[in-house]
Amino acid sequence: MRYRATVAYDGTDFLGWQSQAGKARTVQETLVDAISTVAREPVRIFGAGRTDTGVHANGQVIAFDLENSLDLSTVLRSLNGVLPDDIAIRELSEAAPDFDPRRHAKQRAYKYRIWNAPVRSPTERHTSWHVPWALDAEVLQKAAAVFVGQHDFASFQGADKIDRPSIRRVDRSEVVSDGPILTYWIEANAYARHMVRNIVGQVVEAGQGRCTVADVEKILEARDRGKAAPPAPPQGLYLEWVRYE
Amino acid sequence: MRYRATVAYDGTDFLGWQSQAGKARTVQETLVDAISTVAREPVRIFGAGRTDTGVHANGQVIAFDLENSLDLSTVLRSLNGVLPDDIAIRELSEAAPDFDPRRHAKQRAYKYRIWNAPVRSPTERHTSWHVPWALDAEVLQKAAAVFVGQHDFASFQGADKIDRPSIRRVDRSEVVSDGPILTYWIEANAYARHMVRNIVGQVVEAGQGRCTVADVEKILEARDRGKAAPPAPPQGLYLEWVRYE
Repeated sequence: MRYRATVAYDGTDFLGWQSQAGKARTVQETLVDAISTVAREPVRIFGAGRTDTGVHANGQVIAFDLENSLDLSTVLRSLNGVLPDDIAIRELSEAAPDFDPRRHAKQRAYKYRIWNAPVRSPTERHTSWHVPWALDAEVLQKAAAVFVGQHDFASFQGADKIDRPSIRRVDRSEVVSDGPILTYWIEANAYARHMVRNIVGQVVEAGQGRCTVADVEKILEARDRGKAAPPAPPQGLYLEWVRYE
Repeated sequence: MRYRATVAYDGTDFLGWQSQAGKARTVQETLVDAISTVAREPVRIFGAGRTDTGVHANGQVIAFDLENSLDLSTVLRSLNGVLPDDIAIRELSEAAPDFDPRRHAKQRAYKYRIWNAPVRSPTERHTSWHVPWALDAEVLQKAAAVFVGQHDFASFQGADKIDRPSIRRVDRSEVVSDGPILTYWIEANAYARHMVRNIVGQVVEAGQGRCTVADVEKILEARDRGKAAPPAPPQGLYLEWVRYE
C-alpha cells in the first residue's frame, strides 16, 4: 500500500531535505527512521520538493510504500510521538499505487518572511531575513508582480544549474505586510533551483531603491543569472503547500 | 548618566531574567556583560519586570548608570554586535537620574500565543503553547473579558506567593485569532507572579468547555489559587511593552 503524508518541519537544525548516507541530520533520513520504526519494516520515502539547509516547511508532501497495513489515526499519533520536536506529520492518508508527490504536483506555494526593522529580532531570527533598510511597499508590490505569468526564469535559478530548462508559470507573486513582518507569497506550477530566494533578493533591491521595477523586468528578460541580485538567505523560506489534481 | 534601553530576547536558551551569580545563562547577566564590555566600566542593570525561563520579550525596559558618556547610536550598534543572537537592544536613550523602570511603569502589556491545531507546529514550538483541543472562540472571548477591571487576583498568582498583595487593574484582556494562532493580549498596571500564564490556563479551560464563563467569575471572586486551572507553559508568553508617564 502506498501512503501520502503532509509534513511540517523547522529547517534550522537540519542539513536540508536530502539523505546524505548518515553523514548529516536531514529531514528525509529523520522521517525514514521514524516511519520504519513505527511500521516495523524498511521504507523509502519520496518528497514533493527538496528544501535547503535552514528552509522550513508547513506542507511538504511525501509518499512511501509499506507491506503492513496501518490504522491511520493510530500511526499518525505514533509517528508524531517518535519524531523529534522539529518535525511533525500533519496528515496521513492512503494514496493511489502510482502517486508521485513530485511529478503529480500541479501547484506549489512558498512564503518568504522578512523582518523589516532597524534592529534584528531575536525571536524571529530563525524564521525571517532581517532587512534593516527602509523598503518602499508600493515598489515591492510592483516588483513582485513582474514575475506573474509564464517566463523563462534563467536569471533567477541557481548559478550551478544554468543549462536546465527554466520556464515556469507563476500564478501569484505578492507581498503581504503585517507590522515589521513582510511576507512574500509565490504560487507556481514548479520552480527552478533557488528561484524563490533569488526573486526575493531582487524584489528587496527594488524596494530599497537599488534598482527600478523596469530593471527587474529587464533582468527577467535577460535570462542571465549574472545580472540579478544575490539570493535572500534560507531561513525566511517556507514550503507552504503542494496541490494535486 | 542614567540610560534607558528597550530590550528584545528569545527566552528559549536563558534560565530566565535574573542573575544567578554566574551559575546559569540569564538575560540580566548577558546584558551586563555586553554593556560593561562596550562602555569599558562595570555596570549594574535594573529591569521593568523579571521573566521566567522560556519567556520572551519584545519590549523589556532596563536602566543603568555609566560614568563615561556615550554616543547613543554608535553604542546601540556596538551593543547589538556584542550581544548574542537571542538578545537585541531596540532603543537606547538618556534617562532622568531617578528613572526606575519597575516603579515608574504605568502600564505593561503581555501577549500569549497559542497554536490551536490537532498536530503540533515545529516552527512555533518555542513561541507558542500547543493546544490540540477544539476551542470555542466566543467562550474564549467572554472568559478573557472577565478579567477586565480592578480585581484581587489571588486565584491567579503563583501558589508560592499567597500572602502578597494581589489587587491589579486590567485594562485589556482579549483573544485575537489568526488562523491556527490565537493570541491573548493583556494590559495592566502591574501583575501578580505568574498571573498571565494562570489566566491563560483558565481561559483555555473555558474554551474547551471544561468550565463555564460563570465558573471563571466565581474562581476570580474566590481569591484561592487552589480553585483555578494550572498555568499555561512559559514559551507562549511575551513581555510586549512597558509604558511610562
